[in-house]
Amino acid sequence: MQRKLRMAMIGGGKDAFIGAVHRLALNMDGLIELVAGSFSSNPEKGLESGKTLFLDEERIYPDYKSMLEKEAAMPADKRIDFVSIVTPNFAHFEPAMMALDKGFNVVLEKPITLTLDEAKKIEEKLKTTGLNLMLCHTYTGYPMIKQAKELLANHTLGKIRKIYAEYTQGWLSTFLENTGQTQASWRTNPEKSGKAGCMGDIGTHAFNLAEYITGLEVTQICSTLNTVVEGRMLDDDGAAFLKFNNDATGVLTATQIAAGEENYIRIRVYGEKGGIEWKQDDANSLLVKWLDKPNEIYRTGGAGNGTFASHNTRIPAGHPEGYLEAFANLYRNFALTLDAKINNQNPEKEWLDFPGIKEGIRGMAFIENIVASSESNQKWFDFKI
Amino acid sequence: MQRKLRMAMIGGGKDAFIGAVHRLALNMDGLIELVAGSFSSNPEKGLESGKTLFLDEERIYPDYKSMLEKEAAMPADKRIDFVSIVTPNFAHFEPAMMALDKGFNVVLEKPITLTLDEAKKIEEKLKTTGLNLMLCHTYTGYPMIKQAKELLANHTLGKIRKIYAEYTQGWLSTFLENTGQTQASWRTNPEKSGKAGCMGDIGTHAFNLAEYITGLEVTQICSTLNTVVEGRMLDDDGAAFLKFNNDATGVLTATQIAAGEENYIRIRVYGEKGGIEWKQDDANSLLVKWLDKPNEIYRTGGAGNGTFASHNTRIPAGHPEGYLEAFANLYRNFALTLDAKINNQNPEKEWLDFPGIKEGIRGMAFIENIVASSESNQKWFDFKI
Amino acid sequence: MQRKLRMAMIGGGKDAFIGAVHRLALNMDGLIELVAGSFSSNPEKGLESGKTLFLDEERIYPDYKSMLEKEAAMPADKRIDFVSIVTPNFAHFEPAMMALDKGFNVVLEKPITLTLDEAKKIEEKLKTTGLNLMLCHTYTGYPMIKQAKELLANHTLGKIRKIYAEYTQGWLSTFLENTGQTQASWRTNPEKSGKAGCMGDIGTHAFNLAEYITGLEVTQICSTLNTVVEGRMLDDDGAAFLKFNNDATGVLTATQIAAGEENYIRIRVYGEKGGIEWKQDDANSLLVKWLDKPNEIYRTGGAGNGTFASHNTRIPAGHPEGYLEAFANLYRNFALTLDAKINNQNPEKEWLDFPGIKEGIRGMAFIENIVASSESNQKWFDFKI
Amino acid sequence: MQRKLRMAMIGGGKDAFIGAVHRLALNMDGLIELVAGSFSSNPEKGLESGKTLFLDEERIYPDYKSMLEKEAAMPADKRIDFVSIVTPNFAHFEPAMMALDKGFNVVLEKPITLTLDEAKKIEEKLKTTGLNLMLCHTYTGYPMIKQAKELLANHTLGKIRKIYAEYTQGWLSTFLENTGQTQASWRTNPEKSGKAGCMGDIGTHAFNLAEYITGLEVTQICSTLNTVVEGRMLDDDGAAFLKFNNDATGVLTATQIAAGEENYIRIRVYGEKGGIEWKQDDANSLLVKWLDKPNEIYRTGGAGNGTFASHNTRIPAGHPEGYLEAFANLYRNFALTLDAKINNQNPEKEWLDFPGIKEGIRGMAFIENIVASSESNQKWFDFKI
Repeated sequence: MQRKLRMAMIGGGKDAFIGAVHRLALNMDGLIELVAGSFSSNPEKGLESGKTLFLDEERIYPDYKSMLEKEAAMPADKRIDFVSIVTPNFAHFEPAMMALDKGFNVVLEKPITLTLDEAKKIEEKLKTTGLNLMLCHTYTGYPMIKQAKELLANHTLGKIRKIYAEYTQGWLSTFLENTGQTQASWRTNPEKSGKAGCMGDIGTHAFNLAEYITGLEVTQICSTLNTVVEGRMLDDDGAAFLKFNNDATGVLTATQIAAGEENYIRIRVYGEKGGIEWKQDDANSLLVKWLDKPNEIYRTGGAGNGTFASHNTRIPAGHPEGYLEAFANLYRNFALTLDAKINNQNPEKEWLDFPGIKEGIRGMAFIENIVASSESNQKWFDFKI
Repeated sequence: MQRKLRMAMIGGGKDAFIGAVHRLALNMDGLIELVAGSFSSNPEKGLESGKTLFLDEERIYPDYKSMLEKEAAMPADKRIDFVSIVTPNFAHFEPAMMALDKGFNVVLEKPITLTLDEAKKIEEKLKTTGLNLMLCHTYTGYPMIKQAKELLANHTLGKIRKIYAEYTQGWLSTFLENTGQTQASWRTNPEKSGKAGCMGDIGTHAFNLAEYITGLEVTQICSTLNTVVEGRMLDDDGAAFLKFNNDATGVLTATQIAAGEENYIRIRVYGEKGGIEWKQDDANSLLVKWLDKPNEIYRTGGAGNGTFASHNTRIPAGHPEGYLEAFANLYRNFALTLDAKINNQNPEKEWLDFPGIKEGIRGMAFIENIVASSESNQKWFDFKI
Repeated sequence: MQRKLRMAMIGGGKDAFIGAVHRLALNMDGLIELVAGSFSSNPEKGLESGKTLFLDEERIYPDYKSMLEKEAAMPADKRIDFVSIVTPNFAHFEPAMMALDKGFNVVLEKPITLTLDEAKKIEEKLKTTGLNLMLCHTYTGYPMIKQAKELLANHTLGKIRKIYAEYTQGWLSTFLENTGQTQASWRTNPEKSGKAGCMGDIGTHAFNLAEYITGLEVTQICSTLNTVVEGRMLDDDGAAFLKFNNDATGVLTATQIAAGEENYIRIRVYGEKGGIEWKQDDANSLLVKWLDKPNEIYRTGGAGNGTFASHNTRIPAGHPEGYLEAFANLYRNFALTLDAKINNQNPEKEWLDFPGIKEGIRGMAFIENIVASSESNQKWFDFKI
Repeated sequence: MQRKLRMAMIGGGKDAFIGAVHRLALNMDGLIELVAGSFSSNPEKGLESGKTLFLDEERIYPDYKSMLEKEAAMPADKRIDFVSIVTPNFAHFEPAMMALDKGFNVVLEKPITLTLDEAKKIEEKLKTTGLNLMLCHTYTGYPMIKQAKELLANHTLGKIRKIYAEYTQGWLSTFLENTGQTQASWRTNPEKSGKAGCMGDIGTHAFNLAEYITGLEVTQICSTLNTVVEGRMLDDDGAAFLKFNNDATGVLTATQIAAGEENYIRIRVYGEKGGIEWKQDDANSLLVKWLDKPNEIYRTGGAGNGTFASHNTRIPAGHPEGYLEAFANLYRNFALTLDAKINNQNPEKEWLDFPGIKEGIRGMAFIENIVASSESNQKWFDFKI
C-alpha cells in the first residue's frame, strides 16, 4: 500500500457500543485512517464525539447527507475511500445507498438492512456502481475459523453430515429495554431492529458461521422463536432445524436470556471421517476429532495451518488473539482489497475472504424465513430469498 | 445392612457390553453379591460366562425361566433378592414380568421395554406386587447432577426458562451393523431395539436428564430424526424442540454419527438469575453462572454441596469419580432401599433417589412421541402417554 | 482365573480413610474377596468394622499377629492369598515382615515404611521368600499414564530433556491436626509418618510418577522444605530441583497448604521433538505436543493407544474412568500376577506393570534425600540409597 | 486528551519481531501517532520500513542520534512526545539516555538494559529529568492480572504463603540460532542479550508477574540454570526457589526448550483462605479458589471486577481480549499519564499502573542474582540490587 485508506464513520458516537469497537479494530493495523464522521443524529453530540477522536472539525459533519455530499466534492487525494456505517439496523439502508451513489465503498454492520428487500436493492446498486461492500460478520475473521473452513473445503473430513451452531447470551435476561439502556432499547424495538430480535442480532451470526465454514447453503428450515421476558416486543430466544444443499442437517440455537452467559459461540461440523469444534471462549484452538486416530488441536500461529489462517494471524502462537483481532482482519482484508483495486492490482485470494453482499442477502433471508417458520404450524419451510 | 443382597443377572454374557459394566458398578460397594445368572440365550456360552465369574455352577442357569423358577423355590436365606436384566430391549419385558411374579425385585436397562404398552404393564405389576424396580439412567447417579437438581429445586436460579440437553456420539458413523459388531447389530434393528435407534439408546438419557434435573415435565415436542448412514434401519441422529409444564422451552439433540465424538453429554439449564452447566467430560464440576456475580464451580466432594451430592460421593475432592461410580450410586441406593424394606425401616430420601418405573414410562413415551412427531408434518405434538 | 483370590486387610477400620478406598478398588473387578481382617488396634472397633463388611466373625481378628498365625494354619483352599496393609506408615513394617514370614503376599500403602532401612529389610525378605509385594502408587494405574510411559519408552518424543512434576493440595492449610482429625493427626506426626510430612505423603507420588513415566532415575537433588502452618511438626510444603541419569533435569513441587486446591497432580515431560502433559483433573486425556505439527489428544479407550493403556481400560471412551479405576488397576494386575504364579503360568507384561519393592526403596530414599538436602546449605546432593 | 501523542520508534524494522507488535498495540486506541522513526541500523532498510508505515520521509531517520537531535529541534507542536525503543537488549541504554537528555519520555522493551549498572544510570537520569519511562512487561496489562492484584492487595485471600510462576516455551528446542533466525540469534548471544538467555527473555516476565500481583519482593533466591541445546551460549532453561519479604516462598520456572509449548504462562498465588490462578491460554478468566466455599471465576468484563480490571477492559465480557489488548493497555495508560502531565492534571491511579524503572531495576537484579546463584554451590543467595 502507498498510503492509508481514508474512512468516514456514520454513527458510533459517545453512547454507542459498536462504533468504538470498529475503531479499535480498524486502527490496529495502521492501514486505515478515520478522517471524517457524522457520529450522531444529534449534531452537538456528534461534534463532541468527533473531537474526542481528534478529527479535523471541518470533517465532523452534522449528518451523513452533508458529509457524503461534501466528501464527494473533495479532491481525490483528500476525500474518503469508504464509509463505515455503524448505526442501528433501520439506519443502514439509506446512508449505504447514498454512499454508493456518491462513489464510496461501504462497510456495514449486520444485519445488513431492515428488510430483505432493501438488501436486494443494495445488491443492485453494487452491481451498477462496481463498488465494494463489507458486512461485519466478525466471527469469520478468527484464524481458526479460517482454518476450519479450509479443512472442510479440502474434504479432509469427508462429506459433511451434521452442523451444530449455537450462540448463547444472557444480557437480555431482564427487561433491560425499560431501564434506558441504549443497546437493549433499539435491539428489542421492531421499528429499529427489524422483524427479529435475538435471531437478527446473533442468530444471523450463527447462521453465517454455519454457511461460511461449510461452504454449504441452507435450503429448509423449521424454527421456534420465543419471547421469554415479559413485555419484550421481539424474540429473545429460539432454535431452528436446518437442512443444507448437500443433505446435511443442522441445529441452530440462539438466545439472549441464558442468564449468566456472556457471549458464547460454538460451532461443530461433522463429516464422514471426523469433526471440527470451535468455541469463542477458546478462540485460538480448533479441535479436530477423528474416527480412528487421536484428536488434534490446531492453534492460531501453530504448525499445520493453511494460508487463510496464517494470513489472518498477527503474532506467534501462544500470544492469544481475540475478538478485536478477528474484527481487524475484516478491515484489513477489505483495505487490502480496496487498495489493490485502486492500484489496478489483483487482490490475493486471502484478502477477498471477507463477508459482503451475498452474506447480507442470505442473512436477511434467514431472518425472514426463521420468523415465518416460527409463526407457522407447518413444519418445514423452504428457505426462500 | 446385615448381609449383602443377593442378585442374579439375566444376559450380560461374554460378548455383551453392558452386563460387564453392571458388574463393575454393583461390585464396588460390597453391598451386593452376584450369586446366580442366566447369561446367554446360548446355554453353553452362559455356563462359560458364569464360570469366569466364579459362580456356583448350580446357579448358572441355561435360561431365565428355569432360573426364576428354581431361585423362587430356594429357602429365603439363600435365594436372590433381585434380578438385573441387561439383555437387549426386546428381551426386557418377559423376564421382568416373570421376575416380579416370582417375587423378585428388578433392575432394568433402559429403555425399559420395547413399547410403551409393555412399560405400562410393568407399572401395573409393580403396583400389585409392591416390589421395586430400578431403571439404569446412569447419568443421574453423578454427584454433580444431584447437586444441580438440588440447586434448581431450591429455586436458587429463579424460575427455569431454558433447557439444552445434548448427547453426542460418533461410534455409528459407519455401517457398523454390517460388520458383525454385536452392539451395533441389535441397536439398529427395530425388532430388537424398538421404534427408535439413536433416540431410544441415548436420546432417552438426554430426555431423562432434562426432566430429572429440573423436576419439570415435557408437554409438547417437535422433532426431526434422520438416518444418516445408508442402509441403516433406524434413526441415528435427531433433534427436538421441547416445551415444559412451567412454560420453559428446550432443545434436545442426540446423534450417533458425529464422527470423532466419544460419549459427550452436556446439559444446561437457565433460570431468571443464572444457569447451570454440566458436561460428562468434566463430570466432577458443576458450573453455576450468575447474572450479577462471578460464576461458581461446585465440585464432587467440595465445599457447598447438599446432602444428595454428598451421599453419592465416595472419595475426597480432587480424586476423580467417573461413570462407574455414578452407576454404582444407582445400585447402592437401590440396595439400601431394598435392605431398608426387608428390615421394615424407612429408607433415607437420598437412597430413594434412583430412577424407576415413572422414568421408564416417560422414556417410552418420549420414544413414541419423538418418532411420531418426526414422521408428521404437523409442527407441535402434545406429549402423550 | 479359577477362583477369586482371598485377602485380609490390616487396618482400615471405621474411622480410617484409605482402607475404605482400597475396598472400593479391590471389589470392582470381582477377582478378589476380602475374607479376613484385623481392622483396628482397638479390637472392639475392629470387630464392628468387620461386621459392616459382612465378614465371617471368626475371621475378624483382634490383631494382625493372631490373624496371620491363624490364617497360616488354615487349609490351603481357605486361607488368604495376601494381606493388604493400610495402616499409618509406622505400622507397615512389622505386619509386612510377619506376613511374608508366614508365606503371604503383601499389598502396602505408600510410603512403604517409616525408614529406608526398613524398606531394605523388606526387600531382603522378598528375595528369600519369593513372595510378591505391591505398593499403592495409585496414579501409575491411570490408562493415560500408561500411555505416556509407552510413548516415552518408544522414543516417540526423542531424548527426554525436562520433567515437571507437581502435586498440590490445600487440606492442611489450617492447623487441622489440633482438631482431632485423624488423617491430619498421624500424617503430621513424625513418629507415625516418618521424616517427612508433605513430601512423604504426596511428594513421593510426584517423584514416583516422574520416574515411572520416563523410565529414568533421579541422581541428584536440591530441595527446600517448609513448615508453613504454625505448630506443625513436619514439612507441609516444598520443592526440589532434580537431575536424572540421562542428564535431563526436573522440578518437583508438592504442597498441602495451597488453600482451595483439592488434589491437583500434573506431570509434563519434554523430549527433543515434543512433550506430554497429564493432569489428574482431566485424567482421561493425554496431551501430546509437537514441535512441528498440531498437538494430539490421546484418550482413555480412544484410538491409538498401546497395549498397556488398553489393558487398563474398562469401558468405552467418553465414559470417564477415575481414581478408583486407577486404583483397581493396581489390584487387578497384582491379582492376575499372583494367580498366574499360583497356576505356574507366565503373567503378561501388562499384568506385571504394578509398583513394588523397587519403587518402595526409591520412595524412601527420596524422603531421606529430600529432607537431608533441605536441611543442608550444600546445593546439590547425590541421591543416595 | 486534546491531541494524539506523537511518538518515534527506534528499531522495529522489517525483519524485527517486537516492533511490529508494539505498533499493533499502540495503534489500537487511537491515542498515539507514530510520526518518526529510525527503524534499522541499516539506513536503507530503515527508510523502506518507514515508508511501509506511511511516515513522512523527512521523519524517517538513518540513525537514532540524528533523529533525537532533529526532533529535539522541532517546534513543540510538532516534535515527538516520546520514543519507543524496541532494539535488542544491548542497544537499549544509549538511545534511552540520549532521549532523556533531549527531553523525551521513553518506552523500553524488557529487560531494560544489558546490565544492572546501566539500569541504575537510567534511574538517576529519570530523577534528574523528571521524565517518564514505561517498561514493557506486557503481561501486567491483562485485566485479570489487574484483578488478581487487587484481590490480593485487599487481603481477600489472607496472608500470602505460596507463589508459583511458570513461563514455558519450546521455540528454542533446536539450535535455531544457527539457521539465520534473527530472533534466536541475538537472544542467545551474550553480547546482545546480556548475562542470561531464557531467564532474561522470559524469566524476567515470570519474576515481574510474581512481584506485581502480590506486591511482595523477593529477598532470597536459589537457582539452577541449564543450557540444554548443544552449542548454545546462554541458558535456555532454569528454575529458582524464591523467598519473599513476608516469608512467603515461591517456585519460578522458565524454559525455552519445552518442545511443543507455545508461550505458556501460569501464575498461582495462595493465601491463608484461598488461592488465585491465571493462565495466559485462558487469559480472560481468573480462577479464585476457596478453602471453604465453591471456587469462583472472575472474567474480563464480567461482574465483580474492581476499577483496575474495568479500566483495562475494552469490550463486553465474552468477546475475548488478548495479548495485543494487554499490550495496548500499557501504551494507553502511559499515554494518559503523559497527557495528564502535559496538561498539568493528576493522572488517575489506574493510569499510573504501568511498569517502569523500578521494575526495570528489579528485573536486572533478578538476572544478575539468578545467574550468580546458579553458578554457585551456595544454596541460598540474598537478592542484591
